[in-house]
Amino acid sequence: MPATDSLRLLHLNPIAMLPFECDYSCGAHPLVLKRLIETNDERTQTYGFDRFSERAREKIRTACGMPGADIFFLSGGTQTNATVIDGILKSYEGVVCAETGHINVHEAGAIEAEGHRVIALPAVNGKLEATSLDRFMTNFEQDENRDHVVQPGMVYITVPSELGTSYSAREVSDIYEVCRKYRLPLYVDGARLGYGLMADDCDFDLPWLARHCDVFYIGGTKVGALCGEAVVFTNMRSPRHFFTIVKRHGALMAKGRLIGVQFDALFTDNLYFSISRHAIAAARRLKNMLRERGFQFFIESATNQQFVVMKNPVMEKLARTVAFSRWEKYDETHTVCRFVTSWATTSDDLDALEAALSRLPAAR
Amino acid sequence: MPATDSLRLLHLNPIAMLPFECDYSCGAHPLVLKRLIETNDERTQTYGFDRFSERAREKIRTACGMPGADIFFLSGGTQTNATVIDGILKSYEGVVCAETGHINVHEAGAIEAEGHRVIALPAVNGKLEATSLDRFMTNFEQDENRDHVVQPGMVYITVPSELGTSYSAREVSDIYEVCRKYRLPLYVDGARLGYGLMADDCDFDLPWLARHCDVFYIGGTKVGALCGEAVVFTNMRSPRHFFTIVKRHGALMAKGRLIGVQFDALFTDNLYFSISRHAIAAARRLKNMLRERGFQFFIESATNQQFVVMKNPVMEKLARTVAFSRWEKYDETHTVCRFVTSWATTSDDLDALEAALSRLPAAR
Amino acid sequence: MPATDSLRLLHLNPIAMLPFECDYSCGAHPLVLKRLIETNDERTQTYGFDRFSERAREKIRTACGMPGADIFFLSGGTQTNATVIDGILKSYEGVVCAETGHINVHEAGAIEAEGHRVIALPAVNGKLEATSLDRFMTNFEQDENRDHVVQPGMVYITVPSELGTSYSAREVSDIYEVCRKYRLPLYVDGARLGYGLMADDCDFDLPWLARHCDVFYIGGTKVGALCGEAVVFTNMRSPRHFFTIVKRHGALMAKGRLIGVQFDALFTDNLYFSISRHAIAAARRLKNMLRERGFQFFIESATNQQFVVMKNPVMEKLARTVAFSRWEKYDETHTVCRFVTSWATTSDDLDALEAALSRLPAAR
Amino acid sequence: MPATDSLRLLHLNPIAMLPFECDYSCGAHPLVLKRLIETNDERTQTYGFDRFSERAREKIRTACGMPGADIFFLSGGTQTNATVIDGILKSYEGVVCAETGHINVHEAGAIEAEGHRVIALPAVNGKLEATSLDRFMTNFEQDENRDHVVQPGMVYITVPSELGTSYSAREVSDIYEVCRKYRLPLYVDGARLGYGLMADDCDFDLPWLARHCDVFYIGGTKVGALCGEAVVFTNMRSPRHFFTIVKRHGALMAKGRLIGVQFDALFTDNLYFSISRHAIAAARRLKNMLRERGFQFFIESATNQQFVVMKNPVMEKLARTVAFSRWEKYDETHTVCRFVTSWATTSDDLDALEAALSRLPAAR
Repeated sequence: MPATDSLRLLHLNPIAMLPFECDYSCGAHPLVLKRLIETNDERTQTYGFDRFSERAREKIRTACGMPGADIFFLSGGTQTNATVIDGILKSYEGVVCAETGHINVHEAGAIEAEGHRVIALPAVNGKLEATSLDRFMTNFEQDENRDHVVQPGMVYITVPSELGTSYSAREVSDIYEVCRKYRLPLYVDGARLGYGLMADDCDFDLPWLARHCDVFYIGGTKVGALCGEAVVFTNMRSPRHFFTIVKRHGALMAKGRLIGVQFDALFTDNLYFSISRHAIAAARRLKNMLRERGFQFFIESATNQQFVVMKNPVMEKLARTVAFSRWEKYDETHTVCRFVTSWATTSDDLDALEAALSRLPAAR
Repeated sequence: MPATDSLRLLHLNPIAMLPFECDYSCGAHPLVLKRLIETNDERTQTYGFDRFSERAREKIRTACGMPGADIFFLSGGTQTNATVIDGILKSYEGVVCAETGHINVHEAGAIEAEGHRVIALPAVNGKLEATSLDRFMTNFEQDENRDHVVQPGMVYITVPSELGTSYSAREVSDIYEVCRKYRLPLYVDGARLGYGLMADDCDFDLPWLARHCDVFYIGGTKVGALCGEAVVFTNMRSPRHFFTIVKRHGALMAKGRLIGVQFDALFTDNLYFSISRHAIAAARRLKNMLRERGFQFFIESATNQQFVVMKNPVMEKLARTVAFSRWEKYDETHTVCRFVTSWATTSDDLDALEAALSRLPAAR
Repeated sequence: MPATDSLRLLHLNPIAMLPFECDYSCGAHPLVLKRLIETNDERTQTYGFDRFSERAREKIRTACGMPGADIFFLSGGTQTNATVIDGILKSYEGVVCAETGHINVHEAGAIEAEGHRVIALPAVNGKLEATSLDRFMTNFEQDENRDHVVQPGMVYITVPSELGTSYSAREVSDIYEVCRKYRLPLYVDGARLGYGLMADDCDFDLPWLARHCDVFYIGGTKVGALCGEAVVFTNMRSPRHFFTIVKRHGALMAKGRLIGVQFDALFTDNLYFSISRHAIAAARRLKNMLRERGFQFFIESATNQQFVVMKNPVMEKLARTVAFSRWEKYDETHTVCRFVTSWATTSDDLDALEAALSRLPAAR
Repeated sequence: MPATDSLRLLHLNPIAMLPFECDYSCGAHPLVLKRLIETNDERTQTYGFDRFSERAREKIRTACGMPGADIFFLSGGTQTNATVIDGILKSYEGVVCAETGHINVHEAGAIEAEGHRVIALPAVNGKLEATSLDRFMTNFEQDENRDHVVQPGMVYITVPSELGTSYSAREVSDIYEVCRKYRLPLYVDGARLGYGLMADDCDFDLPWLARHCDVFYIGGTKVGALCGEAVVFTNMRSPRHFFTIVKRHGALMAKGRLIGVQFDALFTDNLYFSISRHAIAAARRLKNMLRERGFQFFIESATNQQFVVMKNPVMEKLARTVAFSRWEKYDETHTVCRFVTSWATTSDDLDALEAALSRLPAAR
């Protein structure tokens, strides 16, 4: 382990345990790996101009119903957020998001690194609300001191949210309407987009989403790829010189094919969606198990992340055989714990979890 | 292709042609790919704490003869340079390099993006000279206005240089001595380190280099990997909170194993060095071919990049069947062209190139 | 007026009206101006090395009871905050403050411009609370993800607060204790420090404050000078190369004497304190007038800023003859209004205000 | 003196000596001071919306023959350069200048602080040449790797140059033509603009200059003011939200009147030009003295800065009674020395210098 002063284990000894701590502890989906193997010996263009990346772009455009969309492949989520947001904002502008937004909590200041403030508004169920955004903008426009403050320059939401909750089509379109009213581009962080779109309570699909924001990204790292996110500019053209902006952020891969090949596989025969559906089915079973054992849910989620409140001794006992995340302190005697499924979750994993849960004392 | 306003092809139609345009147009070395396949189904820790990354770190420490070295894996060269340099410099400091240094010419301002000036000194044969560095620092220290200028905070060199030339052990140790005289950390960009160390005229090895700089990186992207560079802090500890610094640069991979696994393979059974040696042997043959055809070399290189001066019509003719790079204009009628070998160059490639060269008119 | 697209008047037509809108609408205090006149023809060293600046530094050191303090003169408050904070923080660190902190609300992103997050905690009566800071730091230290977030690197408070409230000595020392516990430098923004120290409810003096923080600034712009703030490093040395940091921020004045001369005057014969006391006496009378007229105070303040809640029609009527600030909407029918006194407030101003208030309809 | 580790005296003990070390060692011109005194007791609007600033803007517009120009007042030169350049450039763009440009040599990285590279081209007589700029841009446009490098976004020149030399009208218009060819805004740093315009070899005036660049600033600090520079946007509108950009740079003065009043005085009855003319007359006499004493001029200058090559012992002897600057080492036994006149240079100063020169041994 690197000898820095403050490195922590995010998940205690997960390897020997049942894997519910996150959705990025496995390698690639077998079909993604297969494509990497098949294409390995081909020589290609570099920096994302290769034919695999081209093909992946075409397939994503089709899946989005947007033949004219600009698409770029970047290697990770924080990098993608920092690059897209910096590419869109002017130097003196900030990005508006829910206080629970990933850029506000877990990106180590990557947005500020480029000089932009993250303007956090209160979140409800992990989501930004159109009314709250509208109120903020109204107050901003009426503020006599508005020239002395950071100018709001775009809006960021995560679909599904960081707490696993789903935005309804109505909620997204309301937010988008407020964005257009104030000429703010809307950017959707789709790190777990597949899991969001396949959730039972999701009432929109990919083409609909593409028509209701200005740019979004389709997360690969957490949905079957080894790395890689696909940025899709929809109703706006990509910012001028976005290629250079990507390079300046250290986000341009020499072997861009690495991501192109993976997205080519993910968008062949709807793989991206079918593996996401698998994770949602697993999450449904997981949720039922937890509910049956009497656990209180911290928040209602229909996606692949489930948050429950656990008595600390119960949590400690479970943690001996199951890997999951301690999300935050609930009160002096309880903790919010996160259980995550993914495309890689197996029936065996779920059976074993069920057995482990049955060995626990009273739920809360 | 992304619809930006100024995207260019770096290398015209290389796919159908003989592959001498760069060293990153292929996938992974078969043994690297094999390890990715073998390990794919294992669940691991995330963010570089996995056992493959740990093992790779151990092997690299051994290869460097530095049991205590701090090692971090990042995904690409520009990102690595930006992160390491920003991690070391204070806000008001700049990095000194040769004017041909990669950070000065081809990183789209990634160093300045974090507020640091690139202080470029004249290059001789693509290399920084100790005397030139010493003179610069002497003048700086004597400058009555020195508090009004960017403070030099570290030194950057590339081994081998961007023009393919090799530093001798004496040249590196002279530079390092000047660095220590002025308390400037020395950072070595090793994007093509394997090719440099295996060059006929290289008179030092990896452990020697590790003892003669403060931090360097071992390039993977151009030497057998799909992506990834290994940063090695040698005589200094890694900067405090370097993990967070990596994250802030968008350079932390969720599935850190992707790079760890590849470096584990590259540093098993000396693969990194043997495949580098292969590229050097290919470069030797390439060089002889070009010399025999009467081409003038723009610069003397013993590594995998060869630069020759070509008459423009000759260049155009060759470009119909061979992929290579137009480096820069030489004069009104000639161009400097770059030919590159790699671990993936085959005898067939070289045979075919020989045939293509033989069909050319008079060399210059 | 500059032809930008969004410039606003901060204060409507103040010139013809009674001056209670801010504490920087006049020129310099006569004794400050006198020193500027007397010294104008002398040639001096530049960049703050002149003898007037030296003398001012000595006087401030004496006033602070800190013979070894490092002192720098900068021209304005936002500039001072940005320079000091950037000088202290490492690139990946942020500054913790109350949500009402000037750096969080009215500095147009000057802190983020250098890459640093402003980490805003809830404010109580416009003040940061030690318990809230301690809780934040405890949670931060216990957070398993702490390496993925902005590292808190220093603490910022404003004395007196942006809402005119006073910190007690106990409150400051409690905050400072938490700061030392977590090794966070404490920085005190003293834009209105004189008015704070002279307030009836202030139970500490300048030397005491100097011993209970690591760096603070003594505001000149709002307390008798034309421009200028004096930064005092107390328990810590100034950051290495702070002179260069000041220059890099565009904050180094060629004729540093301009500020030095003014602070020389302000710290001669306790001028800084006596003119502050004048403003506090004026504020006391102002407060009584407003209370007698039945206005509700938005917050209890003993300094030169007084905030009252006004019925909108009453406010509109008063605004015809009196300049004051509309701070924020209180509810649909009331507005929070700010009245400010300064060293320049006269008895005539107060008499006339009293008359204007007496002509108003029922207070709220 | 501030206790930092590396502060230097720029000019040794100048106070007791004859004042030729710089043009900012005095206070304000008497008429500027007079206006500050006269206006001191008036209450005004803040942040540059005061009537003095308004009046100064009107007078400057008239002097420039540009009724529609946007004008902003900032306090110092480095700050002005950083703010204007950052206001114009996009994040990924750099500013092109001569290698001798102030932003390239003496601003401590203030441009890079906002993420922008200073792209330095060779200087001839301290000046950027249109042909050199054109060649650079041609090469840039033809570079197949142009998307991997910093994009040139504007051009910066200094009038007169940092070495005191004058651009001819032809030289400026040639540069401006190249700028328009490549759509690069041209920014003129006029820190010593008055001295440049009044030089014998200057063949253009202020209105001509205003028509041959996109933005320039009229230096006040070195030409009669205590502080302050006037930024004039001519052929372009000021960047959107420039007021906020100024604030974000810490460059917005609460008492903006301080600069407005001074420029009001400087642009009343052509004061700015008449005091500049005075400095030029003094420089002419200075030049003649130096020439008569046989000194070799390092560069031919008709403005208020004169550079001569001095034998080191001669220099040392003169430095006992005369304050001047050691510019740079010429060779082992000679130094380039700078002598500067200003609006404040007196006949007595010049007489005394003449006497001092006459006491020197042989000139070189």
